[in-house]
Amino acid sequence: RKRILVTGGAGFVGSHLVDKLMMMGHEVTVVDNFFTGRKRNVEHWIGHENFELIHHDVISPLFIEVDQIYHLACPASPPHYMYNPVKTIKTSSMGTMNMLGLAKRVRATMLLASTSEIYGDPEEHPQKETYWGHVNPIGPRACYDEGKRVAETMCYAYSSQDKVDVRVARIFNTFGPRMHMQDGRVVSNFILQSLQNEPITIYGNGEQTRSFQYVTDLVNGLIALMNSKVNTPVNIGNPEEHTISEFATLIRNLTKSKSEIVHKATPTDDPRKRKPDITKAKTSLGWEPVVELETGLKKTIAYFKAELEQES
Amino acid sequence: RKRILVTGGAGFVGSHLVDKLMMMGHEVTVVDNFFTGRKRNVEHWIGHENFELIHHDVISPLFIEVDQIYHLACPASPPHYMYNPVKTIKTSSMGTMNMLGLAKRVRATMLLASTSEIYGDPEEHPQKETYWGHVNPIGPRACYDEGKRVAETMCYAYSSQDKVDVRVARIFNTFGPRMHMQDGRVVSNFILQSLQNEPITIYGNGEQTRSFQYVTDLVNGLIALMNSKVNTPVNIGNPEEHTISEFATLIRNLTKSKSEIVHKATPTDDPRKRKPDITKAKTSLGWEPVVELETGLKKTIAYFKAELEQES
Ligand SMILES: NC(=O)c1ccc[n+]([C@@H]2O[C@H](COP(=O)([O-])OP(=O)(O)OC[C@H]3O[C@@H](n4cnc5c(N)ncnc54)[C@H](O)[C@@H]3O)[C@@H](O)[C@H]2O)c1
Ligand SMILES: NC(=O)c1ccc[n+]([C@@H]2O[C@H](COP(=O)([O-])OP(=O)(O)OC[C@H]3O[C@@H](n4cnc5c(N)ncnc54)[C@H](O)[C@@H]3O)[C@@H](O)[C@H]2O)c1
Ligand SMILES: O=c1ccn([C@@H]2O[C@H](COP(=O)(O)OP(=O)(O)O)[C@@H](O)[C@H]2O)c(=O)[nH]1
Ligand SMILES: O=c1ccn([C@@H]2O[C@H](COP(=O)(O)OP(=O)(O)O)[C@@H](O)[C@H]2O)c(=O)[nH]1
Ligand SMILES: O=c1ccn([C@@H]2O[C@H](COP(=O)(O)OP(=O)(O)O)[C@@H](O)[C@H]2O)c(=O)[nH]1
Ligand SMILES: O=c1ccn([C@@H]2O[C@H](COP(=O)(O)OP(=O)(O)O)[C@@H](O)[C@H]2O)c(=O)[nH]1
Repeated sequence: RKRILVTGGAGFVGSHLVDKLMMMGHEVTVVDNFFTGRKRNVEHWIGHENFELIHHDVISPLFIEVDQIYHLACPASPPHYMYNPVKTIKTSSMGTMNMLGLAKRVRATMLLASTSEIYGDPEEHPQKETYWGHVNPIGPRACYDEGKRVAETMCYAYSSQDKVDVRVARIFNTFGPRMHMQDGRVVSNFILQSLQNEPITIYGNGEQTRSFQYVTDLVNGLIALMNSKVNTPVNIGNPEEHTISEFATLIRNLTKSKSEIVHKATPTDDPRKRKPDITKAKTSLGWEPVVELETGLKKTIAYFKAELEQES
Repeated sequence: RKRILVTGGAGFVGSHLVDKLMMMGHEVTVVDNFFTGRKRNVEHWIGHENFELIHHDVISPLFIEVDQIYHLACPASPPHYMYNPVKTIKTSSMGTMNMLGLAKRVRATMLLASTSEIYGDPEEHPQKETYWGHVNPIGPRACYDEGKRVAETMCYAYSSQDKVDVRVARIFNTFGPRMHMQDGRVVSNFILQSLQNEPITIYGNGEQTRSFQYVTDLVNGLIALMNSKVNTPVNIGNPEEHTISEFATLIRNLTKSKSEIVHKATPTDDPRKRKPDITKAKTSLGWEPVVELETGLKKTIAYFKAELEQES
C-alpha cells in the first residue's frame, strides 16, 4: 500500500486513475483547482478513509508526504488551454517544477502526463519516442505543446542533477466517460452533435488522422509505467489510426443519428496525422491497449446520453 | 531619455549593450546575479548618476519602474548552462515570467534575448524565422534550448493575453572582448589555445559550420529591434558561414601560433550547421552586420592577450 498523489485527479483521466488506485487499496490524495475538473468525478470516494481531496493550484508549492506522484494537472483540450495561455504555461512550467521539488524532497517517484502534442505536426509517422518533434514555438498551441516539452526537460534536469526518479508518459488522444461534453474535442463534439441530430462539424477535409485510446487502457498503461523501472519517455496510445471523416461516420452510425456532415475551416497548426509507435510500451512494460474502438465509443455514448438526460 | 533595465547586464553581451545605452544618455539599471557575469565588465559606470547595479536573481520577482527591458539574464555557453540544468531552466522560465509580469505592470517593452539554439540541429538552411526547429526535448542541451523556446512562448502568451509589447531577438553565435575566457566555446578556446601554443581542439571532423557576429553588431541590432514596431521574432546574426576547421586555421594564423590541431569527440546533439537568414532584420530594421570577421577576431585576440598578461 502506497501514499499516492494524483494532481488533476478530478479531471477526466485523473478520476479514472483514482478509481483504479483506490480499488487497488492505495491511499490517494487528489490535488485539483477545478478549472476543468469537477468534484462529481470523484464524489464517490469522498468520505472513504483512504481518500483525500485538496483544493489547490499546482503553481503554488505543496508540502505533503507521498511515495508516488501522478502529475496530470493541466488543461488538455485546445479550447481549454487556449482560454488563458499564460495560465496554461504557468501550470506546465511552475506546476511541474513544484511537483519535482516535492518529489525531490520526499524521494517520491514522479510521473508526468506528457502528450503526443510534443511531437507537434509530425514529419515522422508513426511517432517513436526518439522523434524530436515539429512544434511551432510561437503558435496558438505553443502554450500547451512547449509547456509540456519544457516539463519533460525539467523532469530530466531533476533526474540527472537531483536523482529524482521520473516517469514520462506521452499520452495520445484518449476518450471515455467523464470527458468534458463541452471541451470542443472531436469525440465529444461528434457524439453530442449526433445525439442531438445537429450537424457534425468536420474541420478541413476530414482526411487528417488520429488514433484514439479508451481511458481504461491509458490508466493501465500509466500504472504499469509508474511501477516499472523505465525512466525514459514512453508512448501510451492506441495505434489504430482513423481519419476524422471515419470517426464522423462511425459515431453517426452508432448513435443512429440523422445529423448531416458539414465542413468548417481547419484550425491553425492542426496536426495532419498522429499515430503512436508503441513498441517500447509493449516490450518494456508488457502493455498494449485492449479495448475496441466501437466498445469504447458505445460506453462513451451511453455516458453522454445519461448526462444529456440529467441536464434536461 | 528612457529608464532601461538590462538583466544579465554584467555579462558579455549585456555589458556592451550597457556601454552603448549609457553613451546614448539613457538611465540604465543592471540586474545580475554574477553567475557568469562580473562587476568588472561594468565597473567603469559605477558611480555614474545614470547607472545603477542591482545584485538580484531574476528567478525572484523584481519591482522597479522602467520603460524598456532587455532581458539577457541566462548562462549562454554549453559548459555554463549544463553546470546546473535545473537552475538554467528556472532562469529561462521563471526569470522570463517575472520580467513579463514586470513589463505588464509598468507597461514596458520587453525584449527577450532568444537564441539560434531554438532551431536546434536545423534541417532548414539557412534558418528563417518561420522555421520551427529541430530540438531534442530531453537531451543535454534541452535545459537551454527548451528553456528559450518556452520563454518565447511566454512572450507571445503575455503579448496576446495581456497586450505586453514584446520583442524577440534570435541571437546567433557572437564573439568579442569580455567573452569568458574559460567558457569552453569555440572562439575563446581556439584563441586561448593559440596564444598559449597549446593544441587547438576541434570536436569531430571540423566540418560543422557556425556563423559568428561581432558583439557591437549584435548590440546595434538589439537596440534597432527594441525601438522598432516589430513584435515577431527576428534573427540577429552574421550570415557569413565557416567550418570550425576554418576558424581554427584563421585564429592560428592571426595569433601566429605554433599550436597543432587535434580532434576530439563530437558533443551529443552538436548542431552540424548554423547560419541565419537575416532578410527580415535587413528589410524591417534596416540592420545588418558590418564588422569583418578578421577585424573582430583581432580585437578579441588583443583582449585575451591583455587578460592573460594581467593574470600572470
Ligand atoms: N485526454 C487526452 O486525450 C490527453 C492526451 C494527452 C495528454 N493528456 C494529459 O493528461 C492530463 C489529464 O488530461 P484530461 O484529459 O484528464 O484533462 P482534464 O482537463 O479533464 O483534467 C485536468 C485536470 O487538472 C486540473 N487542473 C488544471 N490546471 C490545474 C492547476 N493549475 N492546479 C491544479 N489542478 C489543475 C483540472 O481542474 C482538471 O481536473 C493532462 O496533463 C493532459 O495534458 C490528456
Ligand atoms: N553570446 C552568444 O553567442 C549568444 C548567442 C545567442 C543568445 N545569447 C543570449 O544572450 C544573453 C547574454 O549572453 P552572454 O553571451 O552575454 O552570456 P553571459 O553568460 O556573459 O551573460 C549572462 C549574464 O546573465 C547573468 N545571469 C545568469 N543567470 C542569472 C539569473 N538567474 N539572474 C540574474 N542574472 C543572471 C550572468 O551573471 C551574466 O552576467 C543570454 O540570454 C544568451 O542566451 C548569447
Ligand atoms: O515539498 C516541496 C518541495 C519543494 N516544492 C517547490 O518546488 C520548487 C522546486 O523545488 P527545488 O528544490 O528545485 O527549489 P529550491 O527550493 O531549491 O529553489 C520550489 O519552488 C519549491 O517551493 C514544493 O512545492 N514542495
Ligand atoms: O468538432 C471538431 C473537433 C475537432 N476536429 C478535428 O479533429 C482532430 C482532433 O481534434 P481534437 O481537438 O480532438 O484533438 P487534438 O487536435 O489535440 O488531437 C483535429 O484534426 C480537429 O481539427 C473536427 O474535425 N471537428
Ligand atoms: O512588477 C512586477 C510584477 C510581477 N512580477 C512577477 O511576475 C510574475 C508574473 O506576473 P503575472 O502578473 O503574470 O502574475 P500574477 O501576479 O498574475 O500571478 C509573478 O510571479 C510576479 O511576481 C514581478 O517580478 N514584478
Ligand atoms: O574547443 C572547441 C569548442 C567548440 N567546438 C565546436 O565549435 C562549435 C561551436 O561550439 P560553441 O560551444 O562555441 O557554440 P554552439 O554554437 O555549439 O552553442 C561546435 O560544433 C563545437 O563542437 C570545437 O570544435 N572545439
